[in-house]
Amino acid sequence: MISVGIVGGTGYTGSELLRLLAQHPSARVQVLTSRKEAGMRADALFPHLRGHVDVVFSEPSPEALAGCDVVFFATPHGVAMGSAAALIDRGVRVIDLSADFRLRDPLVFKHWYGLEHAATSLLEEAVYGLPEVHRDLIREARLVANPGCYPTAVQLALKPLLEKGLVELQGVIADCKSGVSGAGREAKVGSLLCEAGDNFKAYGVAGGGHRHAPEIAQGLRDVAGSAVGLTFVPHLLPLIRGIHATVYTRLKAPAGDLQALFESSYVDEPFVDVMPAGSHPETRHVRAGNTCRLAVHLAEDRRTVIVLSVIDNLVKGASGQAVQNMNIMFGLDERSGLDNVPLAP
Amino acid sequence: MISVGIVGGTGYTGSELLRLLAQHPSARVQVLTSRKEAGMRADALFPHLRGHVDVVFSEPSPEALAGCDVVFFATPHGVAMGSAAALIDRGVRVIDLSADFRLRDPLVFKHWYGLEHAATSLLEEAVYGLPEVHRDLIREARLVANPGCYPTAVQLALKPLLEKGLVELQGVIADCKSGVSGAGREAKVGSLLCEAGDNFKAYGVAGGGHRHAPEIAQGLRDVAGSAVGLTFVPHLLPLIRGIHATVYTRLKAPAGDLQALFESSYVDEPFVDVMPAGSHPETRHVRAGNTCRLAVHLAEDRRTVIVLSVIDNLVKGASGQAVQNMNIMFGLDERSGLDNVPLAP
Amino acid sequence: MISVGIVGGTGYTGSELLRLLAQHPSARVQVLTSRKEAGMRADALFPHLRGHVDVVFSEPSPEALAGCDVVFFATPHGVAMGSAAALIDRGVRVIDLSADFRLRDPLVFKHWYGLEHAATSLLEEAVYGLPEVHRDLIREARLVANPGCYPTAVQLALKPLLEKGLVELQGVIADCKSGVSGAGREAKVGSLLCEAGDNFKAYGVAGGGHRHAPEIAQGLRDVAGSAVGLTFVPHLLPLIRGIHATVYTRLKAPAGDLQALFESSYVDEPFVDVMPAGSHPETRHVRAGNTCRLAVHLAEDRRTVIVLSVIDNLVKGASGQAVQNMNIMFGLDERSGLDNVPLAP
Amino acid sequence: MISVGIVGGTGYTGSELLRLLAQHPSARVQVLTSRKEAGMRADALFPHLRGHVDVVFSEPSPEALAGCDVVFFATPHGVAMGSAAALIDRGVRVIDLSADFRLRDPLVFKHWYGLEHAATSLLEEAVYGLPEVHRDLIREARLVANPGCYPTAVQLALKPLLEKGLVELQGVIADCKSGVSGAGREAKVGSLLCEAGDNFKAYGVAGGGHRHAPEIAQGLRDVAGSAVGLTFVPHLLPLIRGIHATVYTRLKAPAGDLQALFESSYVDEPFVDVMPAGSHPETRHVRAGNTCRLAVHLAEDRRTVIVLSVIDNLVKGASGQAVQNMNIMFGLDERSGLDNVPLAP
Repeated sequence: MISVGIVGGTGYTGSELLRLLAQHPSARVQVLTSRKEAGMRADALFPHLRGHVDVVFSEPSPEALAGCDVVFFATPHGVAMGSAAALIDRGVRVIDLSADFRLRDPLVFKHWYGLEHAATSLLEEAVYGLPEVHRDLIREARLVANPGCYPTAVQLALKPLLEKGLVELQGVIADCKSGVSGAGREAKVGSLLCEAGDNFKAYGVAGGGHRHAPEIAQGLRDVAGSAVGLTFVPHLLPLIRGIHATVYTRLKAPAGDLQALFESSYVDEPFVDVMPAGSHPETRHVRAGNTCRLAVHLAEDRRTVIVLSVIDNLVKGASGQAVQNMNIMFGLDERSGLDNVPLAP
Repeated sequence: MISVGIVGGTGYTGSELLRLLAQHPSARVQVLTSRKEAGMRADALFPHLRGHVDVVFSEPSPEALAGCDVVFFATPHGVAMGSAAALIDRGVRVIDLSADFRLRDPLVFKHWYGLEHAATSLLEEAVYGLPEVHRDLIREARLVANPGCYPTAVQLALKPLLEKGLVELQGVIADCKSGVSGAGREAKVGSLLCEAGDNFKAYGVAGGGHRHAPEIAQGLRDVAGSAVGLTFVPHLLPLIRGIHATVYTRLKAPAGDLQALFESSYVDEPFVDVMPAGSHPETRHVRAGNTCRLAVHLAEDRRTVIVLSVIDNLVKGASGQAVQNMNIMFGLDERSGLDNVPLAP
Repeated sequence: MISVGIVGGTGYTGSELLRLLAQHPSARVQVLTSRKEAGMRADALFPHLRGHVDVVFSEPSPEALAGCDVVFFATPHGVAMGSAAALIDRGVRVIDLSADFRLRDPLVFKHWYGLEHAATSLLEEAVYGLPEVHRDLIREARLVANPGCYPTAVQLALKPLLEKGLVELQGVIADCKSGVSGAGREAKVGSLLCEAGDNFKAYGVAGGGHRHAPEIAQGLRDVAGSAVGLTFVPHLLPLIRGIHATVYTRLKAPAGDLQALFESSYVDEPFVDVMPAGSHPETRHVRAGNTCRLAVHLAEDRRTVIVLSVIDNLVKGASGQAVQNMNIMFGLDERSGLDNVPLAP
Repeated sequence: MISVGIVGGTGYTGSELLRLLAQHPSARVQVLTSRKEAGMRADALFPHLRGHVDVVFSEPSPEALAGCDVVFFATPHGVAMGSAAALIDRGVRVIDLSADFRLRDPLVFKHWYGLEHAATSLLEEAVYGLPEVHRDLIREARLVANPGCYPTAVQLALKPLLEKGLVELQGVIADCKSGVSGAGREAKVGSLLCEAGDNFKAYGVAGGGHRHAPEIAQGLRDVAGSAVGLTFVPHLLPLIRGIHATVYTRLKAPAGDLQALFESSYVDEPFVDVMPAGSHPETRHVRAGNTCRLAVHLAEDRRTVIVLSVIDNLVKGASGQAVQNMNIMFGLDERSGLDNVPLAP
């Protein structure tokens, strides 16, 4: 039984880790920290967990966490980079759900997050935890940087096309839509039901763009082998869970069978579902599940490829992928704890 | 492995049976019938099941169904009463999710459903499938009438009070609110997002009331030992899943410890959660789960008891309770296939 | 042209006053104060007002406000009671949308709001601004206490019955449901889309009840002539605007024609719509309008009267009623600025 | 006073015409037809209109309609083309909200709508009712083809760029999102709250695309002077009203001041609001209003132009634009009946 610690379990990624790990046959949450809620049972804060979880929030303690096999950081950006090294030194494997170790270049990190990176030496060994690209590295990693939600949806949409070099690397457009849970459980006016409900808008187009843009660009470059020119526009959906990425690229030459390409590219992937030709994946069909569902279409001009990609941002876009990474790191069946059926309607 | 048949699997209770049984360790759906969709894979109609379910809709066939250990009817009212007898005669156990066998009096049935009852002899042996009241009978039953959603929420709210004879039997008020999935997957103007969304209303107050009223009254009488005077007002919530019953009764005499009464009444129940004193159960905290969560309050007048009761109408209010009944009938652990954690947020 | 001041215009009641007054033929907002947003155009904070409103937020200034004919307080509780007297002394009429002057007894106010009342002398002259009850007093009032949203819906539901003395004064139940905008535009976790969306719950049942209970009780006593025993349970709806009150009372004797009673009681009221017998009023049918729609039903027991009452909590439940009060105070057509058609779907 | 007839008033565009015309100072609905609801008051079907509308549905009668000054067709595709000629011959001006007269080429019409065009002679004189492009022609038109909702949002987004010839005509992408009311008030499974709620998906990508694509293409060609290569992907939002178009084009050469270009292009337009640089227009900020709000952004690559465009699909995308066209045709102030403030929150 793997002993798990979770740092910062009062947000949505934290509560989702608790939900998924409660159903995991080979892992058990031993330590759950929160300065603010220390002493409170987790199921008092999150009553949906009643009957399934009996862990209690505790003050963060390096000693207690050092006794775990793996520690998840479900903290705001800037926390994990200050604490990961000490844990890793004591043999604890770390999976960071924040952005601290996603961007390999500390200057890029500083530009987008406004923080001096505090653990640049770890940046080198951190593995970007997108299993469909880096599974082998994840297996051995001491530190995994769990991908962001938008980056997961967009990279999985483009991987088959970029790997084969079929599309132009400039002018890629990712028009993405996310549920409000992506903004976390903080009290912010913009996340109120009366502001985000019954509404739709783009955001982050002005002001230099969204923080996930450099992460996506880095990931696409890894797959394509050279820089990809991406326009990324996020939008806010009036729902809780779900990301839908609509990705547009142009073929360099007339296409072969794109459907077959996608199917063969992901044939062995347990959590990527290439839907039948002509499909339109829906966010509800991955709700609560760790699956990314994809559909590939060729536009009327026979040149523009449209890929539709959906994930649950809290699962494959965060906590589910983190558990998937844990499974890989500890040699478990990759589906362990992640086999529940998505919830629809 | 229990061999399962489902008649009429194209609605929400049908798809929910498929979701729950896909996660069941001891049951497997062998036959899934639909006249309209015969030949189609279930996961083509319900893509959230992709990767979990590979059954195909077939034409209803008495032969095929007779080969099952248990058959669920997830059909409109009036179907099961025409087909159940033949199956039972061949040794198949039947769980009917429709109203056909819920009301013991065929005249009451006719009054509310406008149909002459076609299987009055079976009415006598049908067991009302509320495990918290009739578990022993369910165990041996050949035919279980699975309760309605509102009746489940209201009966569980009142059972501890009625059993002990603590409250007046007249003037009981059940102000109930249901998500739209209770209206099924039929194309009806009133269930459109543009009609039921961003809106709230009562319904069924005029015109003689709601069909669930006589079912609730029958169930309460079973528990109380004599007739209960109930005013039942259903309302439509702008959400998909969830029932919240707010039930008002009056104490005959000053109360003892109502919290302790509720806790002891349900101490052994796997799917009833009496929340701590002062709680306000929320529908999201039972979403996708088979649990009914209850809270009991005494009003300022020290005489009015307010019970708050929430269920997921598609799970404890329909398909989950049906699986719970199957588990009881076949001597399985009552929680089999029903142990997934509710989904929040 | 009436010169209007608004104190605290950055919340939902403030922005709604701006929307309604922008359409008012005889009033114009001259002063709009906000410490936090001073210097910002109102339509920069509330872009739906672009093209209709060009007022700019300013620091609160007694001088500027004293130049207005009427000042609305759209502030948190505790502000108006400190500022109203100075304005009234200078001849400005005041309409307070907060609770400061609603409860006539300062001890009751202190109990529920935790504040020592700072203007007890004004409490005596303050008029409770429910036009259907106190229109004549409002006409001459210097200070109007604009009613709360729940109290408006419940009092209008019960007025015809209480006035005629038809129902028992004990055991009245008001099961009320409100949209989230009732909680205001403050950043609170409980008002997040991810917390209040796709969910339904009661609140304020424990802990002594909801602040609107004493206000409702005071208003009902005014109409009934003696104390009314009320159980008030509020619930939170997953939508933005709308209150639905379901009110249960018992007839003292067999009823006459309740429909006719309600119709005659409200025949001259411009903003109360008694719907045809058998109706179920819906919150969307009053969305953005100042109308309260009512339906009266007799339950199967022929003794319990069920009244269904809907309002838009931001209009008839707050800012619209405030404008209605202004119209009365200044001798205008009561419908001025309030004649827009509700918005559905 | 303009005498108005509405053919087919039982859908959302019909009820929205009733709402807007009830507030119009110079027009009055005299005839409202519906085969199905003949004899019923409009406000019985649409209770939000109670107190504002007293017209009654009648059987369609050429005689009655011929007595009107203008007739709106709020009917399914295929109706207006059979009835418009007779009305026009009798001097009635016609505004068709369906697609019957939008596409100038009857072969294109047949391809997309599956109907032989029944009034090809009228196709020539029909004016496409986008006032920002064809105001002068609308003024004199006997027959106006009111634009579709998506086409309105996309054409207004691109007009300033295409008129000046600043962008490449190939590779234009319109990623559009619409509320469910765009699908009308018909009982369809896909429009149920339980299917379209809490969900997001693209549609119409496969199967040859969406019917609005040829309409958009025709409109863009009118403005650009030559054919525009467009990829149009519509998506379904889980809300009732609102369209958001995110339009991507590429500059031919480094841009001048795009903000100034948009502002000057629309400076005289009463219903196009170019928001300040850096804005993200939200659908709620045009809810219930006839305004299109736009923002123009230049992507990081300094070459991709992103235009964000929002309308209320039932107002500027349908009935409001129809009233705007009527105002132009009859020489009224273009804002008549359309000056209500949008509704937020």
